[in-house]
Amino acid sequence: MRDLSRDTGLLSLNTATIGWERTIREAVEACEKFGIAAVDPWRHQMHAGGFAENARLIRNAGLEVTGLCRGGFFAAPDGAGRDKAMDDNRRAVDEALELGARCLVLVVGGLADGSRDLAGARRQVVDSIAELAEHARPAGMPLAIEPMHPMYCADRGCVNTLGHALDICDALGEGLGVVIDVYHVWWDPDLETQIARAGRGGRILAYHVCDWRRETRDLLFDRAMMGDGVIELKKIRALVEGAGYDGPCEVEIFSKLDWWKRPVDEIVRTCVERHRSVV
Amino acid sequence: MRDLSRDTGLLSLNTATIGWERTIREAVEACEKFGIAAVDPWRHQMHAGGFAENARLIRNAGLEVTGLCRGGFFAAPDGAGRDKAMDDNRRAVDEALELGARCLVLVVGGLADGSRDLAGARRQVVDSIAELAEHARPAGMPLAIEPMHPMYCADRGCVNTLGHALDICDALGEGLGVVIDVYHVWWDPDLETQIARAGRGGRILAYHVCDWRRETRDLLFDRAMMGDGVIELKKIRALVEGAGYDGPCEVEIFSKLDWWKRPVDEIVRTCVERHRSVV
Repeated sequence: MRDLSRDTGLLSLNTATIGWERTIREAVEACEKFGIAAVDPWRHQMHAGGFAENARLIRNAGLEVTGLCRGGFFAAPDGAGRDKAMDDNRRAVDEALELGARCLVLVVGGLADGSRDLAGARRQVVDSIAELAEHARPAGMPLAIEPMHPMYCADRGCVNTLGHALDICDALGEGLGVVIDVYHVWWDPDLETQIARAGRGGRILAYHVCDWRRETRDLLFDRAMMGDGVIELKKIRALVEGAGYDGPCEVEIFSKLDWWKRPVDEIVRTCVERHRSVV
Repeated sequence: MRDLSRDTGLLSLNTATIGWERTIREAVEACEKFGIAAVDPWRHQMHAGGFAENARLIRNAGLEVTGLCRGGFFAAPDGAGRDKAMDDNRRAVDEALELGARCLVLVVGGLADGSRDLAGARRQVVDSIAELAEHARPAGMPLAIEPMHPMYCADRGCVNTLGHALDICDALGEGLGVVIDVYHVWWDPDLETQIARAGRGGRILAYHVCDWRRETRDLLFDRAMMGDGVIELKKIRALVEGAGYDGPCEVEIFSKLDWWKRPVDEIVRTCVERHRSVV
């Protein structure tokens, strides 16, 4: 298991961590200030102020890009909605290429509005990823399926376990992998087996950390800083590294209720401290 | 698949549905008024005003008791805490026997306070259920493990899929089964397989219904009335009945944010209507 206690070379900052309303410029400046080597930007932040300008900021800072968040949200009630979603996903692939990102993160989406057809939504997700892979594979951009915690099944992602995501990878072949985010998978009784399986297939494209607050107050916006919750972070990282993953640990914290209210410096300084001590 | 459209003989009212602060007397009176044949009472409601008196009310109304909620919460940080939890669980078995309940529902509990040891908590759960079964099995009271939605893994229940619960049943033998509550399991990509497995083993001791609100506002207290959410209720009931379950459908709705604020009559009338139309 790698020693993270002495440097930040294996820390990536997901730009949502400083707050969804803050800018890529703020994220890049914080990375430079605290010696962070990599980022994973969100697309709406990249487009605020201009994608090209933000891409230039990241490039000039010499930051690695561990992913682009996000493609996905494939479920659509009709053909027109689906065409629109696919067009946007192809643009996301192109943006990931422009950034030289390691992967495009896919949050696959839940049920279409007004629908209860979960099996149908899952079929649509598989079909859509297959179609998107026809664009991404020849361009060399890996698609990273992020299994979502089951509490997001209806509204954010209907691929809900690592095993489920790997089944889709196996079905669709090369150019696909997974994001393992501890927040989504820590509870899974099959986690150890599925991490090993992901490693054997060379499917682990990214590893995301944060923590689960024992008394979670909000389904989306109450993630905890690493060390402030109940997830066995070092144990899971050992499994992920044991499965062959050698990339950065990316910090992704959605915390409208706490961290996003704080100054960027305090957030990022704490990320660095916790990365060194508890991740 | 059974036709529920014409009667309430297959409807059981979990007494939490009318609100945790309301009484067994109110629940029993509502059952009599609306022709409901069965209840599943919560222990704190049974003890409010006296267990014996509440048991008498249920018996005199001729109500079947589809379960007693609940035993469990086994995780304890030390030996004294564990002894106390086991004593309380044995009392719960005795109370279930006194009520002639079909089963004692087990919400197994999450991590002990201050602990992150999920594997240890799960071992403690298995050991505790094995010990409790020594008391319950000779007395003829089935123990019904209720797999909890993964969002409750830390604080309410660290058995998080139906397959996980059935693994424990298989390991511990006779006298054990499961509660299938749609709220906890609807998202599971392995649901169909595991319901069939539960049926083959004769393990389905109870079937609970409510609904999942697409935009869930609270992890515990925002369950929806059947028909107001996204769960494919008839599809899941067909699987459960196809697996051999022939008992009542029990309505269990925790809804501090909505239904618990309404009059008992309105809640129970709606349960009956939805039981006939969408369950």
